[in-house]
Amino acid sequence: MITFENDYSCGAHPQVLRRLCETNLIPQPGYGFDCFSDSARQKILAACGCPGGEVYFLTGGTQTNAVVLSSLLKPWEGVVAAQTGHIHVHEAGAPEALGAKILALPEHAGKLEAAELRQLAATLLADENVEHMVYPGAVYLSHPTEWGTLYSRAELEAISAVCREFGMRLYLDGARLAYGLAARDTDVDLPLIASVCDAFYIGGTKCGALCGEAVVFPRQTPPHFINFIKKHGALMAKGRLCGVQFDVLFTDGLYYEIGRQGVETAEKLKKLLAKHRIPCFMDTPTNQQFAILENARYQALRERVPLSFWSKPDPEHTVARFATAWYTTDEYLKELDQLL
Amino acid sequence: MITFENDYSCGAHPQVLRRLCETNLIPQPGYGFDCFSDSARQKILAACGCPGGEVYFLTGGTQTNAVVLSSLLKPWEGVVAAQTGHIHVHEAGAPEALGAKILALPEHAGKLEAAELRQLAATLLADENVEHMVYPGAVYLSHPTEWGTLYSRAELEAISAVCREFGMRLYLDGARLAYGLAARDTDVDLPLIASVCDAFYIGGTKCGALCGEAVVFPRQTPPHFINFIKKHGALMAKGRLCGVQFDVLFTDGLYYEIGRQGVETAEKLKKLLAKHRIPCFMDTPTNQQFAILENARYQALRERVPLSFWSKPDPEHTVARFATAWYTTDEYLKELDQLL
Amino acid sequence: MITFENDYSCGAHPQVLRRLCETNLIPQPGYGFDCFSDSARQKILAACGCPGGEVYFLTGGTQTNAVVLSSLLKPWEGVVAAQTGHIHVHEAGAPEALGAKILALPEHAGKLEAAELRQLAATLLADENVEHMVYPGAVYLSHPTEWGTLYSRAELEAISAVCREFGMRLYLDGARLAYGLAARDTDVDLPLIASVCDAFYIGGTKCGALCGEAVVFPRQTPPHFINFIKKHGALMAKGRLCGVQFDVLFTDGLYYEIGRQGVETAEKLKKLLAKHRIPCFMDTPTNQQFAILENARYQALRERVPLSFWSKPDPEHTVARFATAWYTTDEYLKELDQLL
Amino acid sequence: MITFENDYSCGAHPQVLRRLCETNLIPQPGYGFDCFSDSARQKILAACGCPGGEVYFLTGGTQTNAVVLSSLLKPWEGVVAAQTGHIHVHEAGAPEALGAKILALPEHAGKLEAAELRQLAATLLADENVEHMVYPGAVYLSHPTEWGTLYSRAELEAISAVCREFGMRLYLDGARLAYGLAARDTDVDLPLIASVCDAFYIGGTKCGALCGEAVVFPRQTPPHFINFIKKHGALMAKGRLCGVQFDVLFTDGLYYEIGRQGVETAEKLKKLLAKHRIPCFMDTPTNQQFAILENARYQALRERVPLSFWSKPDPEHTVARFATAWYTTDEYLKELDQLL
Repeated sequence: MITFENDYSCGAHPQVLRRLCETNLIPQPGYGFDCFSDSARQKILAACGCPGGEVYFLTGGTQTNAVVLSSLLKPWEGVVAAQTGHIHVHEAGAPEALGAKILALPEHAGKLEAAELRQLAATLLADENVEHMVYPGAVYLSHPTEWGTLYSRAELEAISAVCREFGMRLYLDGARLAYGLAARDTDVDLPLIASVCDAFYIGGTKCGALCGEAVVFPRQTPPHFINFIKKHGALMAKGRLCGVQFDVLFTDGLYYEIGRQGVETAEKLKKLLAKHRIPCFMDTPTNQQFAILENARYQALRERVPLSFWSKPDPEHTVARFATAWYTTDEYLKELDQLL
Repeated sequence: MITFENDYSCGAHPQVLRRLCETNLIPQPGYGFDCFSDSARQKILAACGCPGGEVYFLTGGTQTNAVVLSSLLKPWEGVVAAQTGHIHVHEAGAPEALGAKILALPEHAGKLEAAELRQLAATLLADENVEHMVYPGAVYLSHPTEWGTLYSRAELEAISAVCREFGMRLYLDGARLAYGLAARDTDVDLPLIASVCDAFYIGGTKCGALCGEAVVFPRQTPPHFINFIKKHGALMAKGRLCGVQFDVLFTDGLYYEIGRQGVETAEKLKKLLAKHRIPCFMDTPTNQQFAILENARYQALRERVPLSFWSKPDPEHTVARFATAWYTTDEYLKELDQLL
Repeated sequence: MITFENDYSCGAHPQVLRRLCETNLIPQPGYGFDCFSDSARQKILAACGCPGGEVYFLTGGTQTNAVVLSSLLKPWEGVVAAQTGHIHVHEAGAPEALGAKILALPEHAGKLEAAELRQLAATLLADENVEHMVYPGAVYLSHPTEWGTLYSRAELEAISAVCREFGMRLYLDGARLAYGLAARDTDVDLPLIASVCDAFYIGGTKCGALCGEAVVFPRQTPPHFINFIKKHGALMAKGRLCGVQFDVLFTDGLYYEIGRQGVETAEKLKKLLAKHRIPCFMDTPTNQQFAILENARYQALRERVPLSFWSKPDPEHTVARFATAWYTTDEYLKELDQLL
Repeated sequence: MITFENDYSCGAHPQVLRRLCETNLIPQPGYGFDCFSDSARQKILAACGCPGGEVYFLTGGTQTNAVVLSSLLKPWEGVVAAQTGHIHVHEAGAPEALGAKILALPEHAGKLEAAELRQLAATLLADENVEHMVYPGAVYLSHPTEWGTLYSRAELEAISAVCREFGMRLYLDGARLAYGLAARDTDVDLPLIASVCDAFYIGGTKCGALCGEAVVFPRQTPPHFINFIKKHGALMAKGRLCGVQFDVLFTDGLYYEIGRQGVETAEKLKKLLAKHRIPCFMDTPTNQQFAILENARYQALRERVPLSFWSKPDPEHTVARFATAWYTTDEYLKELDQLL
């Protein structure tokens, strides 16, 4: 059985699982005070080039976004995001459940544009009625975006400059960051992200872990952040579970290797789709590919291989998402080739 | 190195871990729609004697309490709990963060009394100012309690009767349920809990899993419960992680076996404490033992073996909690014997 | 001194104030259980043609929108509104503070279009990921809109039909309803509003009262609505304050008369602007007129008469809002004529 | 018709109403930027001896408590209050609706004791598990209390010292402050309250206004407080309504005169109850008197004069609250004398 439905269809990367087995019976304190979490934190901060920062482990993306944003925002502030941002579309209102309004901007291949962000902030803060409005307190980016696209270094720096100009905190959702870091022509790496962002998370769930996301505050952690985690039900008793996993992921470059596997397979997948004359909705450099299929072909294919419905560009066609990951072997592609 | 600090100091029960390894590369849908979660759900409902019920998996206790209570309560209602209830004392305000006021009652060895619950509900609902007050909409029990004590069948039935009389939902926090079910003289089992409660959870994190709690709605699930889970950041992408674990825990009686191990070790621990003339604060039938130590002895001991501070019964003494679990072997006790 | 800054610049309509004086020393129960509130409720329900409905008095528009919407929405639902809707733009995040996400649609002269609403609801509810999204639970309309425009009977009926089709509740913000009911060519009256809406409010603050909005549930009131009011700090101890005022407003057609005064003055104002060759941004039939002024003229005028800044259609021009009300006499217009 | 049901049974003190009439047609800006609010703010700050402070007007007590406390508390903090505190008992969960947990302490004639407060704060902050708990961030006092009792200067200073020691903010609910300031033997005045509290409110609704409470921040206002007001639906468009009223209340000592009237009548009422051999539940120096009546006598009396049910000290007796106010004339007492 193969699947392209998403990048969390299997368990953990074998090295992650092996390490969980090795460490299983070593007693450790709870709540992230274990030695594995300590080690993982050091390795992550080193990889990000911000040894003075702090790292916290949470279990999932929606949770992480909600908890971190609520810690970054003042009660009179909201968060700017692209119309297609995960927090705006696919989190069941989790940010709003913590009181955070989302100030939506147009998306450009899933991305925010610095100029539009600047315009929004300048207009809002100059509005005579601003006390009746929600202040732009933070900016949410996803990298890779929900469309699998990537910001360039220049784009991130431009957005960061707008954030500094208007006192907004910059937050980056890296649910699929491994695949972003491994893309062919990207000029964005962890130290850059750490230098432009006030907070970001390095995704584990979609990049080789059983569960877990590593939140990084490169320079300054919101006060009492651990209380935010606990208050929102996100503090794991067995913090070691995330600690052990991220410790492996950031040993000997495993996280990058996982990203590389996903992206290479996606590149092969692109060629396979082209071979079968299936156009893509847009060119994306990471592990998600969006294919345009006639409705009948989509339905037929879907019965034989799990895919994700994405959108309807017109009544006759369907955009289907094919996701690859560390577990998507060449066997998967071979079998897909026969099914297409 | 040994520890009695808590019951989540090691990883997972070896059988749980083994099954995670075996199933690791079998692709499955996300969000709990995997075959392992399905299987686990069936086994849990069978064990609870409520085949028409529903089961959902969440990752931790505080999260589970907050999400389930918020789904059980109407906006004008709060939840009754003992003064010592975990939700009232050790969840950093998580229930209140979802708008739920806790109506605290006195505790009796960590337990609520049906008569006092009845008095509270009757008084509140008869109050002429009730529209300015918080209605008692649900009752929170922990079993075992925070003091390691257990309700009897008769006590649970009496509380359940009060709940039915006043239209309150009954919710039971089973973070350490394995140890409660395995206690020597208990007459409470899963089918009883399922018959008296509107919702409860079977703890995994403290009973052999890496993480995970199984929420059971024996008869009726709150509408759109999955949205509550997602909205509060508690929906796992890799739902299989909990599914696989609970599937093992409820195969061939492993969950009960884990409880038995913890309780038997606790009984041996009791004898060891007695041998060293260390009195216990109260007699508890489960895996937590609360020893009264002179302050100096407590400090000295603590430097050599991890324990939990519990309380100060008087200025000269400290109550320390010793927790056992599935991983607390006889070696642990032998080493403790030498340290005492 | 004159003002066109808004429609809440003076106190109360003299008849309202007179009645407050007359009734001042008649003791009455608190919290809306007074005889004046009773009388007002009867008169309002009669005017709306829904004698079986219920009426509650709150103090302000933002409060009313937040409390009523939170009572209409289930925890998994949000509210659809136009991009320009007051709840989306000018309430400082009050709906989100109660957990309600706003699903924004394009605006057409401040109005929602039934076809776009239908499209949104149909798309959302058919989405395979809907459990990760916010359900459209209610629709927010303002009538008059923030641009002073009005829905027609046909438009309201079309929107109402979409709401019924998709199980959404329809809520209408009538902050300036008096001026809407008094517009020249409108075919919308209170009985129509009561027949198409699940809840709406009849604005007092901007229509002759010192404060106060009358919430009408024409058919069904959300359970325990009074608890919602109290829980959100909106229950007045001296409920009589709103009761007395709305009792007068709905005696002998005063509410309509107030609307008529505001609209007639606005029509004269339109002519005055035309005489001075000042174009309007759009043609609006109610008490708000939006004039396009060169920036310098706007600044100069504003120093002599209070106006509201509205927007910048281009760098050289400013849209200024002129609001009339029951207190905007011909003297006001005469003085404005000289200032223009 | 007479009433002793509460202190908000009539409209406004005649001087307040007269001034509302006089100022009715003077146009003013909205949202508290009117000249009347400015004047009232100056007079209140002068009366409090804190000219550098700030004053904001809200409409009711529950709203004020919720908004101010939410602005004083950090997300990881809760508020300490007496078991009988209004916020804990009679606000339908309004503080919790904004996420604020109440840490309840025993009451002593409705009051907190400094020593118990100190013990709570010291214990909580020294707890090894404090990150899993709610920090004590603020202290809530009511003065007069719900039992009509008063703190002494020494008691307030002791509580304030504890607050400073542990970094807690002190907040005082002065819903009935006029009657507290006018009590015979009190040594508490506005400057003392301003010197010991970080925030407090001077009640209007129960002390002569149609509605309105004046929040005073004697030294430091929480940042963006006006956004808190707006976000929680408490910002009045016609801010002048509160401004005019408080301007009168703080002109020529009217607020104190209103208090004096209420207290003097309460003293006469005490004598009247004594004459009829009706004991009081406790001796209270303000405008609320709590009489113990046999049940039958209570029922009979209540049919002839509105009273408030308070509690059942034993099955045969009822405690009834008699409230006096500025409108409780000697005629009221004469009529009551005949009814007793």
